[in-house]
Amino acid sequence: MESFFTFLEKRVADCSSLLCIGLDPHLSDLQTPNAAGALASCLNLVKKTAPYAAAFKPNAAFFEQFGAPGWEALKQVIDAVRNESQRQGSLIPVILDAKRGDIASTAVAYAKSAFTTLGAHAVTLSPYLGKDSIDPFLTDREKGAFILCKTSNPGAVDLQDLPVLESDPDVNQGNRAVQPLYLVVARLAQSWNTLGNIGLVVGATQPEALARVRAVAPGLWFLAPGLGAQGGGMKDALHAGLRPDGKGMLLPVSRGIARAADPAMAAAKLRDEIFNIMYRRER
Amino acid sequence: MESFFTFLEKRVADCSSLLCIGLDPHLSDLQTPNAAGALASCLNLVKKTAPYAAAFKPNAAFFEQFGAPGWEALKQVIDAVRNESQRQGSLIPVILDAKRGDIASTAVAYAKSAFTTLGAHAVTLSPYLGKDSIDPFLTDREKGAFILCKTSNPGAVDLQDLPVLESDPDVNQGNRAVQPLYLVVARLAQSWNTLGNIGLVVGATQPEALARVRAVAPGLWFLAPGLGAQGGGMKDALHAGLRPDGKGMLLPVSRGIARAADPAMAAAKLRDEIFNIMYRRER
Repeated sequence: MESFFTFLEKRVADCSSLLCIGLDPHLSDLQTPNAAGALASCLNLVKKTAPYAAAFKPNAAFFEQFGAPGWEALKQVIDAVRNESQRQGSLIPVILDAKRGDIASTAVAYAKSAFTTLGAHAVTLSPYLGKDSIDPFLTDREKGAFILCKTSNPGAVDLQDLPVLESDPDVNQGNRAVQPLYLVVARLAQSWNTLGNIGLVVGATQPEALARVRAVAPGLWFLAPGLGAQGGGMKDALHAGLRPDGKGMLLPVSRGIARAADPAMAAAKLRDEIFNIMYRRER
Repeated sequence: MESFFTFLEKRVADCSSLLCIGLDPHLSDLQTPNAAGALASCLNLVKKTAPYAAAFKPNAAFFEQFGAPGWEALKQVIDAVRNESQRQGSLIPVILDAKRGDIASTAVAYAKSAFTTLGAHAVTLSPYLGKDSIDPFLTDREKGAFILCKTSNPGAVDLQDLPVLESDPDVNQGNRAVQPLYLVVARLAQSWNTLGNIGLVVGATQPEALARVRAVAPGLWFLAPGLGAQGGGMKDALHAGLRPDGKGMLLPVSRGIARAADPAMAAAKLRDEIFNIMYRRER
């Protein structure tokens, strides 16, 4: 059985893109502020931008706020990506941005929700409850899990940057190695990746952090949000986070495409900018 | 405007209970394994156990796995608790166990989902993304947020027990204080609690951890899961975690009540056992 990342890499090759198109139906962007409005907005975006999408990333919160009709809309959006994939003859993975994280028996229900009920191919997860909260999402290699590691919001520093002391009792405290929590999470994710279907969420706005995570997780795919509509900082982020094979990073962009006058043109332009950096960077 | 915890304390006084009844419709417990079966199971449990419930805690995952009909069932379960509250003339708070955690604009949508769309009174949250992922849940004092601190699952040690080094640059590393991550989270939660509507999730199975969290967060309410159907370890947990006023802990029990031959009798018995320990313990 192939891994989720095999499918993702095929798609990346098929469309020459590392662009992950975020489907975040913000209330203020909708013609009608309800589930029908969110559905219409996302279906339009999927149709227009699919040729340039390495993946789509619907964010559960923006559907969940509408209750049951929102969840029905989310399912229809994921169905629409599947139909678009068939039309193109190339599977476009759907990463459900849900940031779930609960104990084992509950995690089984969340995995069923994401992969079976909704039909997503991967999901974002929080690491705070540890390995047994992640394992139920890994049992099927064809499904992937991106674990939150280093995010780009202001509050990221509150926990993720805390200095964690290596806990070797044979070494004096003053001589023990210290690393930020997000690097411990990256190492844990690497060690949990026995089936090859784990990735990491690492913000694109801090190239130094990207490079540090890349150093401890050389093979993992990163979902790297934070690039603005203008692609500011894109070059630095790609140089810091890409693997030597020019892959290993998905760049999610939401409002920069959804709010563009011509979303297809905005997506095409970003796709090409990323592609040019991928292949021109110094190795 | 009163805080969520004012409502909770009124309810605790009204029913002489610290019992939080978990509504976790496990597939294997349902007469029909679908949303209708989950709804029927939970409505029955709410009706039978409401007199003994300081709060109800539906777990979103077990509804979410059924897609849109599951979310409709979840809303109906919360409506049923509201109706039961009116019948009793005493508001029974609903804590949505969702463990959400996302960046600010997305957190706004999750808060709307929990508090407005579903009508829950409080929610459980993950701290990994920091303060700005929590703030949107705190803006209405009447709504509460329980932040994951120290959980009782095996994987809890992976992150929560990591030794965090105090980061005072004027002190040599060897002399700096070290504390587990969960205590840092408890201190952060305490410092974020400016409106008085934050609580913590601290597992009941480790009295020593409960006591350490109580020491750094003397006034906060704990949601303390992990007690078995037989109430094993209840006494140690309550002695370690209760505040001097005999309150400050909610004890969630799910399967121990839902799977009992007589759920009302099981709830009444647990309520009384907790009550006896609360008032007989040495101060």
